[in-house]
Formats: sequence, C-alpha cells, structure tokens
Amino acid sequence: MNTTGRYNEPPSTVNLGTDIDDFPEFEPFRDDAEDSEEDGEPEPRGPGELSVQAVDMCRHINMPKHRTQAYVTDNLVVRRGQEFVLHVTFSRSITPRDRFRLEFLIGSNPAIQKRTLEWVTFGTRDRGRWSGRILDSRGPRVVLGVTPRADSIIGRFRMYITLIYKWGLKRTRRNPDTDCYLLFNCWSVEDAVYYPDEPGRQEYVLNDNGVIYMGSRENLLSRDWVYGQFERGVLDACIYMLDACRMPITTRGNAIHIVRKGSAVINSQDENGVLVGNWSENFSGGTAPTLWTGSVNIMLQYANTGTPVRYGQCWVFAGVFNTFLRCLGIPARVISNFNSAHDNNGNLKIELIFKSDGSADMRNTHDSIWNYHCWNEVFMRRPDLPPRLSGWQVVDATPQETSDGLYRCGPASVVAIKEGLVGHAYDGPFIFAEVNSNVIYVTRDKYGNDIYTYVDKRLVGTGLFTKRILVDKADDITLTYKYPEGSVDEEKAMQTAESFGLARDQPAAADPAITVTLSVDQMELGMDVELKVELHNRGDAALTVKALLTCAVVFYTGVVSNRFKSEALEVTVAPDKKETVLVKIEAEEYLKHMGFQRFLAFTLVGSGDSGGLKAVKVVYLRAPDLQLKVSGVQAVGQDMFVNVSFTNTFKFPLYNVTVALEGPRVMSNRQRFYNILQPQASFNWKESFVPETMGKRTLVAVMSSANLCEIWGKIEFVVEDKLHVEEASD
Amino acid sequence: MNTTGRYNEPPSTVNLGTDIDDFPEFEPFRDDAEDSEEDGEPEPRGPGELSVQAVDMCRHINMPKHRTQAYVTDNLVVRRGQEFVLHVTFSRSITPRDRFRLEFLIGSNPAIQKRTLEWVTFGTRDRGRWSGRILDSRGPRVVLGVTPRADSIIGRFRMYITLIYKWGLKRTRRNPDTDCYLLFNCWSVEDAVYYPDEPGRQEYVLNDNGVIYMGSRENLLSRDWVYGQFERGVLDACIYMLDACRMPITTRGNAIHIVRKGSAVINSQDENGVLVGNWSENFSGGTAPTLWTGSVNIMLQYANTGTPVRYGQCWVFAGVFNTFLRCLGIPARVISNFNSAHDNNGNLKIELIFKSDGSADMRNTHDSIWNYHCWNEVFMRRPDLPPRLSGWQVVDATPQETSDGLYRCGPASVVAIKEGLVGHAYDGPFIFAEVNSNVIYVTRDKYGNDIYTYVDKRLVGTGLFTKRILVDKADDITLTYKYPEGSVDEEKAMQTAESFGLARDQPAAADPAITVTLSVDQMELGMDVELKVELHNRGDAALTVKALLTCAVVFYTGVVSNRFKSEALEVTVAPDKKETVLVKIEAEEYLKHMGFQRFLAFTLVGSGDSGGLKAVKVVYLRAPDLQLKVSGVQAVGQDMFVNVSFTNTFKFPLYNVTVALEGPRVMSNRQRFYNILQPQASFNWKESFVPETMGKRTLVAVMSSANLCEIWGKIEFVVEDKLHVEEASD
Repeated sequence: MNTTGRYNEPPSTVNLGTDIDDFPEFEPFRDDAEDSEEDGEPEPRGPGELSVQAVDMCRHINMPKHRTQAYVTDNLVVRRGQEFVLHVTFSRSITPRDRFRLEFLIGSNPAIQKRTLEWVTFGTRDRGRWSGRILDSRGPRVVLGVTPRADSIIGRFRMYITLIYKWGLKRTRRNPDTDCYLLFNCWSVEDAVYYPDEPGRQEYVLNDNGVIYMGSRENLLSRDWVYGQFERGVLDACIYMLDACRMPITTRGNAIHIVRKGSAVINSQDENGVLVGNWSENFSGGTAPTLWTGSVNIMLQYANTGTPVRYGQCWVFAGVFNTFLRCLGIPARVISNFNSAHDNNGNLKIELIFKSDGSADMRNTHDSIWNYHCWNEVFMRRPDLPPRLSGWQVVDATPQETSDGLYRCGPASVVAIKEGLVGHAYDGPFIFAEVNSNVIYVTRDKYGNDIYTYVDKRLVGTGLFTKRILVDKADDITLTYKYPEGSVDEEKAMQTAESFGLARDQPAAADPAITVTLSVDQMELGMDVELKVELHNRGDAALTVKALLTCAVVFYTGVVSNRFKSEALEVTVAPDKKETVLVKIEAEEYLKHMGFQRFLAFTLVGSGDSGGLKAVKVVYLRAPDLQLKVSGVQAVGQDMFVNVSFTNTFKFPLYNVTVALEGPRVMSNRQRFYNILQPQASFNWKESFVPETMGKRTLVAVMSSANLCEIWGKIEFVVEDKLHVEEASD
Repeated sequence: MNTTGRYNEPPSTVNLGTDIDDFPEFEPFRDDAEDSEEDGEPEPRGPGELSVQAVDMCRHINMPKHRTQAYVTDNLVVRRGQEFVLHVTFSRSITPRDRFRLEFLIGSNPAIQKRTLEWVTFGTRDRGRWSGRILDSRGPRVVLGVTPRADSIIGRFRMYITLIYKWGLKRTRRNPDTDCYLLFNCWSVEDAVYYPDEPGRQEYVLNDNGVIYMGSRENLLSRDWVYGQFERGVLDACIYMLDACRMPITTRGNAIHIVRKGSAVINSQDENGVLVGNWSENFSGGTAPTLWTGSVNIMLQYANTGTPVRYGQCWVFAGVFNTFLRCLGIPARVISNFNSAHDNNGNLKIELIFKSDGSADMRNTHDSIWNYHCWNEVFMRRPDLPPRLSGWQVVDATPQETSDGLYRCGPASVVAIKEGLVGHAYDGPFIFAEVNSNVIYVTRDKYGNDIYTYVDKRLVGTGLFTKRILVDKADDITLTYKYPEGSVDEEKAMQTAESFGLARDQPAAADPAITVTLSVDQMELGMDVELKVELHNRGDAALTVKALLTCAVVFYTGVVSNRFKSEALEVTVAPDKKETVLVKIEAEEYLKHMGFQRFLAFTLVGSGDSGGLKAVKVVYLRAPDLQLKVSGVQAVGQDMFVNVSFTNTFKFPLYNVTVALEGPRVMSNRQRFYNILQPQASFNWKESFVPETMGKRTLVAVMSSANLCEIWGKIEFVVEDKLHVEEASD
C-alpha cells in the first residue's frame, strides 16, 4: 500500500530494531532559526549551559523492587504503574531555571498522540502522562523518579534526555544501554492484570517451572514443564512474537488485545506463528511433541530463525503460551480439561456415528472428544464486560477452530462460561461446548438415515485441573467452569447459553432397560489388562444382550490409531440383576500396536434389541519414571552434577531412545541418544553444571523412543548462596 | 498442520475445483457385501432395474423465475429458498417402489453434518433439509422440484442422482454441466437478505451499473461505475475470492460472515486480496485508480492471476465490493460520506496541529479528514443484534484501520450508528467517528505544548449520499446516520456512544469574538479562482485581525500535495460589523501544481491575539465531460457504433491521455491512448459493437492524463428485441 497521499500510514507494528528514525540530536526552534548557524551542530552557548555527562539506569536498585531481577538481560526491566529511579550526572548542579525532560520512545514514528512517545518532566509544567520527580540532587548528580502509567504500552523503550535551551532542544545520543523493558504489573492495583494476593503472584507470574496434567481424571499424571520466562533471550522472543504477527504498537498496553493476539501467534496457522501442530505419528523434520522439556528452546529457535518450530500438540501450545504470558507479567496458568469436546458445528452435541453392525463410522464422524485438552487462563479485569466477569479468562493457542477469521481463542471469562453467558467476547460458545456438550451415539442405517441411540450427558468436561499455588499438587477447578451436574443452576446456565443462540438439540433416545459399565483396575503398561463389563438389567424381564466389544489404541484426541481386537458378547441377565463379564487383553495383544500412544479405548455397542447399549472406556497406561539425582556442593559457583537413569523393565527392547534434560536458571536443554535399550538394561547419564544464582531449583527430564514415550522425571534442590557456603566451611 | 490423529481437519475452504474426492459411483451396502462381485462394477440386476438416461437442469425455465437470466454462465444459477425444476429421464417409468435421491455437494469432504452435502428425497421418507417433490411423471421423463433452504450455503454445487437398490447405491457420473450456482435471495422472506420492495431489489441486486458521488457536498459530482456483476467470469471470481481468503465453506450461508470476509478480501492487505491501495501520485506498474471504468476487469484479472490488482482508492474498493455483493445476491449500495473523519486513536476528535506561525505541523498530525470517503451498505437481518438494528449495515473494504487483527470493517448497523449504540459487532466506534468527530485545531508551541484554539463540531460527516432507486439522482441519507446537528437526540446519541467507551474529549476553546467564513463561487478548472474571506466581529470593540492564508492542492484524503501560495492578511473590523477580503488566485498559479488532483484547499489561521481564528475551505474544480454518441440500428444482433469525443478547452496541452470505454452486457473494457492533445484540439474515437440482449444499456467512458484526470462521460440507450426490429422493417 502506497500512502503518500494519506496521513494515516499503516500502524507501526515493530518494536525491536526501530531506532533508525528517532528525533534529531539537535532541534533548533524555528522562531529564532535565523540566529543559529545554518550548518553544523549548535553547541551549548557558553560554559554555564547544562549538558548530560552520564546516565545510570540503576538495574540493581530497580529490578529487585520491581520483582524482575530474575530476567537475564543487559537492560533495565521494570513494571508499569510503579516508580523506578535513574541517576543522571549533569555538567553542573541544576537550578530551577534549567529545563529538561526524559523521552521514552517505542516503535517507529513514535508520537505523543499514539502514546508511543512519553515525556517525563520534572517541574510545575508537568504535562506528561508518565509522572516524574527529582528525588535527590547533590551537586551535578541527580536522582530522578519516573512512574509510567499503569495502562502504558509494554515492550522495549528507547530513552533520551532532552535539554531545553532558549535556542532549541539538545538530546542525548542514541544509547542502547539506556533502553528499558516495561512489563505488566500484577502488583499494581491500577493495572488491569492486578492479582490480589502475593502467593498467587509468585506462582502465576514468577514461577518459571510448572506442571501440566495429562492422562485421565481417575489416573491424573503430572508432566513437568520448564516455562523459563527469565532465561536470556526469552523476553526479546516474546516481543519478537508480537512484531512477527504485526500487532500495532499502540494496542500493546491492552492486556485483552495482547492475550488474544498471543493465542493467534503461538500456532503457525495464519501468521507463521511459533509452533507447527502435528497430530500424526510421524515427527520427522522436527522434535516430537512429547520430547520437549519446556518452552525456552522453542521460543529461542523461533526468534532466531523467524520460521515456525516443529512440532506441537496442545500441552506444548499451552506451555509456550504460559511462558509468553508470565514473561510479559500477565498472571497465567495451564488448565487441563478431561474429555474435552471438540464440537465441529456449534450445536452443543458431539455425534459419534456407528454403522449398523456396531463398528465406528469414521468417515461420517466429525466431532471428537479429546481425552484431555490443555489451555491457559489469564487473570485480568475486563472493562469491556460486566464487572463480575473479570478474573480468570480462558485463552487457547491450540489451532482447533478459527475465531473471526484466525486460529485463536479467547479471552473468555470463566464466570461467563459457568453462567452460560456465551454472548460476550470472545469465543464463549466454543469453550462452553468444550466442557458442556452432550455425547450422542448415532447409528446410521445403510440408507444413510440416523437413529439416536444413546445420550451421555456426563462424559464431557469430566474434570478441570491446574497446579496448586506454590505446591506440587493438582487443584480440581471443575466447579469454576460448571455447576454440579444435574443441579438447578446447571440447567439455568444451559438455558442461558441457549438464549444466546447455542442450539442444544434434545434428541429423543429411549432410556435403556439395560445399562452397561466398563472398568479397568490394572493400568500398568506392559502388563495384561482386564476389562470388567458390568450389565445391569433394570427391567422386570430377563434380557439377552448381544454386543460388539472393540479394543483400540487411540490418540489423546480420541482418534483411533489401531483397532486390535473385536469380540462379540452374548449375555443373559435376569430381571433386576447384574452380570459381569471379564475380558482379558494380554500385553502382547496391545503392545505391538501402541506406537507413540499410551491410551487404550474400549467401546461396547449393542446390536439388535440391545441397540441402545453404548459404552466407552478410555485408559491411560502408566510407565516407570526417570530417576534423577544431584550431587556436588549445592551452592552458587560450585561444580554440581546430575545423574539421569532408567531401567527397561519391559519384556521388549526400546529403540531410538532420546533423553532430554533442562532446568530453568540451572542448565539449558541437553540431550542424549541411545540406539537400543534391551530388556533389563539401564542407562546412567551424568551431566555437570555450575549454578549462578541461589534458591530453589528444578531439573526436568523426558525420554521418548520409537515404541515408548511420555517417560518423565524431575528433581528439586536448593542452591545456597556463595557467601553462606564459605561461612559454613569455616 | 498434520492432523492424522485428529478428526477435526482444518475446514474445507475451497469451492472451485474440488470434485476429485466425491463419493464412488457404486457403493454396495456392507450388510450383503458377500453377494456382490468382489471386483468390477456391479450392474443393475436385471433389465427392470432403474437407471438414469439424461438430466436437464432447465436453465431457460429456472433462470427467469429466479431473476438470474442475466448471468453469462453455462450452468444453472438459482437463488436459495425458492423451488427450481430438473428434468430427469429414467430408463423406464418410475413406480412408488423405486428409491432415488439427489445429492448436492460443495467443497471438499462434503458431509451432512456440515451442511456441505444436501440430500433431496422424493417420498414419505423425506429427511433432507432441502425439500423435493415430483411435479410431473409421464413415462420415463420426470419433472422434479427442489427447494434449497433459505439459509443454505451459497456457491457452486455439484449434483448427483443416486439410485438406491437392494444391493447398494449407484450414482450418476460426475458431470460439470449439472453443477449449479446457489445465491442469496432477497425475494424470499425467509432469507436473511430479504428486501421488502421490488424497485429496491431491481436497483440493489439487479442493476449492474451505478453512480458513485465525489467532489464535495455543495458541488456533488457523479461518476458512473460499471458493476458488471453478470459478465462472464464474474460470479466465479466472487467465489474465487472467498476461496482465496480461505473462508470455510460451512460458514458461506451466513450473510454476516460473507460480507465481513468480503470487506477483508477486497483489499490486498492481510490475505493477498483483490486490490492494492495507492494514495500516491505514482501509479507505474498498474492502472491509475481514476482510470477504471468498473469492476469487471479488476475481478477477472484477480481471478485469473491470483495476485492483487494495482491500484485502488476508496471508490474502487467500494465499486468492486458492490459487484461482489450484488453478484452473490446481497442487496448493496455505495455511500459517499463528505468530510469523512479518519480518527487514528478512537477519541472522537480529529486533531489538526499547527505551528505557532500558523503553518500546518504535518509531522505531528496523525488524524485526517477525507474530502469524501466511499463505503458500502448491505441490507440484511442481524439475528446477532437486537431486532431494530437489522436493515442497512455499513461495510467498508478500504484498508484504513485493522478490525480484530485484519484490515476489514463492519457490518455495523446504520441504526446503531445513529443511536450511538457502538458496542455491537462490528466496528461501530470507527464508523461512528467517521461521521461524528469534532475537529480540533491545535497550536503546538515550541516546547511541544498543545493549545486548543478552535473546535468545529459541524465539519465532519457533512453529508452522506447514495444513488436513488432506479433513478440517476442523489439521495441525501445523512439523517439515517445522524440526528440533526444540535438536536436533543443528537446529544443523546453522543452520550450513548460515550457510555460504550468512546471518549469524547471536551476541549475548552474560547468562543472567538471574531469568526471567519471562506467561500468560492467559481469552480471551473482552468479559470481564476476568487476566494472570499468574510470576517465578522461579534464583539463590542474594533479588532485588528492578523492571519496567514495558505493555498494548497490537496489529495481527496485531505493530505496536502503542493502548497503554492501563502499570504498574510491584516484587517481591522469595526464592532458588530463584517469585512470582506477578496483573494484572487490566478489559473497559472495553481494549474502547474495540480498533477492528478482536483481539490484546492484554503486554510486561514490567525496569529497573535487572533490565535483562535481558524477556517478551512476545500473546493473541487470541475472540468468538461466526455461526449458519447451511439449510432446504427439499436437492436439485438445489429452493428452499432459509439463515438467518444473531447475537446481540450484549456490553455495548456494534455499529455499521455488514456481513454477507457465499457458497457455492461454491451462491450468489455476498451482503451485508446493519445500522446498529446493541444489546446483547442479534439479527438473522435469510434468503436463498433453488437448487442446480444435487449433492454436499457449504458456505456461509460473515462479519461485520465498526466496533468488532468477524472474526466467522465456516459450514454444510455435502449436495445430493441431482434424480432421486434424485423417486424418494424416490414
């Protein structure tokens, strides 16, 4: 677009590397331009005129006060809505007649009206949005206090000190050392992302390590994830992401816009974002989603190459998004929703279609239930919505469906989801369906006609979990999303959602006289699995059930990878009685079909008179953990060691074994490869490292092989202060 | 994104050329698969089994009834919510025991659940969303009636006839001749785009020619524009545009989504859409926006090359968008808003910044007032909004500001704009500001401090115009957008807008004792211009006014192209008196600076004690029209001629003169070039054509040169029916 004939250029969308066109160093006032030299730089007139000798951004004073000392950067990092100090050394003591101001610039063509240029003045003529005050002034050294507004644009600012003389302006020269990063501030009541208590801020903004829940509700597995938001380069990578998706600088102070844009740029759809999704079993040309230890490598690779990183699945999208959010100072956490509905056509029902012989009709089934799905929550005020909808908001970076034209989702108020208020921005209907859809079992006859045979209203959104604040335990937050199943309030929320246009078909499916329950006790990978089929005849006549039981390995998205067993059942159940059938699946039967997957799904579908009988049971099979041990003197500057070990307790060898290890503020990602690990064989992998800062630290390891993955391990340890160790050694 | 492990593939987004994976011709039922031959195609069993011999889509019966006969296509074009007929010839007479259905498919992987596969059945087992009935059945020839639902997906459908035998299904083979286009239907009450009267439908959907208003409110100029929505290839180009911007097929039945997506794809920003904007004076490598005669060439070039067409300005974006909308059957019209505000930061004020000497501060002015700006209105129900907000909706394809991440704008209810209800989807605040902003004149002192000197509340949105239904006159529709200036209702609407977060700063600018009015009587290009400056002293003491008058050539966006004259005025005005100063600008003074532009702007800014004095007057200079004459027998199939002529009545030669000529359903775009046209010289350009259909027709011509553009001409004439002429010649 050529815009010479328009004032309104396309907005500035680049923050990093935009210092080329800053204001001139010398800017004579036009009124008395005749007085000044036509060429050359006007010098300050006379020895008494003020000039700037040195500027100190006071990182060591400001960053602890702004809780930003963990960021590994060379520049000042501060939070908006809170004062920070600068030391300026002038050529002489300043007097009330001296006039100067600070100029903070962001993006190209910064301007006062666009809030991309902020002036800070230090006198009675204070007109800037950011306030300034002189805190101390002894001789030529002056201590200045600057308070950016709590709704300022966030990002990397350039700073100039501008002296105002009678003849014009003189600025300090461009100096990248005086650039500073401005972040969201959950400690400031005025900031839209204010979080009301300190433990929450410690967890949701400052914790650079976390847990993502997987598996199933009954068999909750925790996978550690290194957020690593303070590691060198990560803050710049976050700003690069906003630049890459061309987010206008002027909108970067608005938390709603930042998180919505973030949910779009984490996935590579639409704007060449960070991560390429891959839900196949072929991860060649990239890293398997199961092998990542955390976000840092992904974000640095993206920022360095500018091309999407291969590959992600939902927890990777959620993990990287969480790093992005915490790094910018927005309180954020990762949520896992078990049996998450992916409703393809917005009718609040998941239609699973079967052929008349009881086998699944894969071709015509478009909806799906993911065994689990991960998304993020951010904590913020929503000035665009009724006040009670502020607080936690759902955002989802996994590319599932487009929202107003792009792959992105949210922010949607969690309270609004619970109340069924799905008309508010953004994407309420899709998220409401993820936790509230009914599952409809449909039998399609040979002419293509559909018969609804069974409705399960309780399967979807069976539980939502997140890591507890500062504790390594799961918090069940299901009741923040849904009223209890069957309650009056739940029905009211469903009706509210319907009033916003969410169509809830109420298919008429007869209440079956016979019901079936599937259960499994043993869930260890490599062991035989015994499925218990319990049939309950609630009628007053004996019934003979004919059904087809199908056993399959499935993806975590619920999609069948391999169907390995099919068994016809015929059982007669006396009136008002239960009958139990045990079906044994031997380890050999399923192991050769597992591949990358860890889920088994059992589907029972009745036929003939028992056509209404439907049941699904999905089981996650556990495996042993990696073992981690640390040794050496656990203190800053000392050599330390970590040992990662694993013994193959299975009866089969593991091929192409990759192990990865990482610890935020301890060690960047390292990997080791083993061609084969025979049954009963072990590996012991020792790495050394030198801790640079004190405090509680975590190391996380993952293992992935051609025929087994999702093997995890971690260790926590405390690094002592350097000084403290020397005292102890006396 | 690799999705093997997910059911939910990225949605189908391509309509044209997606017939590769349609259903098989033979589809045996699985239940009795054992009976059928394993290899080869099963033949209908026995001579009595039904088969299809021929299908006739009945273009000549259906298209007049669906008002689609003007579309130049080889396929059937019909509108949804209205029955159309098909003639099917079977192998024998059908009986009630025969079972068959029609299958209509759109996009790849069509499915019943996604509404991209529609079944039409013809018996009691009618379960399809589209209804079917047998209208006549004599012998093997059957007349079938098909009624697509009024909310169906629109686009190009593939059609199959499927016979249902005991052993399975047999389909007709793929035949592009039986494809049909389904459009929106403003004649159907059930359709969301229903328009309530016939003259309106004739204008807003069926008129393929139109007028776009330019110039200024006082000097309204009409420019003809060939929409040409029925020309060969244009309907396919519209569908191609939806494909190019990857609009999911499943959402293509929703008029709101179609027009929102359309407003994004007309401009080349974001998704490589149709037109590249160019607001400079350099149009090399493309066609100057002023030289287009209509939309057809632009759309065909885009569809054929897949790359954006160079170049457009607002009326080109609006003209092409109007073609797109009318072609798909959505009632649409082009609106011109005079003095259209482009508010860069959403505060309902346009800040024009001046330096202390009265000259414009171009660097710091980011807002602008376009002398005129064109957008579109579409007529539709808005089920997503309160009912009274249905009706005309603003959509704007000119890339001005991004809306939720993309360059697009609307649909926004016109009623909502008038009432200040800017909280409803989509983009109410931006459009509200375009017609309601206050203009603030700001003087910036040398330290950078801003002083508000004058507020003009009446300049912006001074008039909105559109072509009258079926008549070549302008309708003033200002009152559909705004209550009268100064009325109680207007203040209420402003307050409503504020309650939705639109900040209206109320700058305190003193009511000046002296006011100034600028006016110009003569507006012919090439003649001297006399500016009348009228000063009115409303105070009770004599005042001496000092002011700077600046004369400039400006773009239609209000941006200064050349400032060619600057004159200091000093006038003393007695109390309660008026003084008039006449400033003469000679033709020679401005002509050499005009370039492509036709607007002169006069700006008067007071200085010293008269600092509050500000006035702007923008004048569009008229020029002679092109003359068009037709000759020959005005009847179908006869040779006809058109003569385009122009005489250079200016005192200067015209260089690089291009003339373009086009008439919908008469003649596609033709061009002629003249190196130079000396003063008093003329050209006479004669072209021949043969009309193919009868009715009222229009030919439109435009002329553009290196130093003069926006020269227009048109002629209307009636083409008689062929038969009628033969009778007349007897």
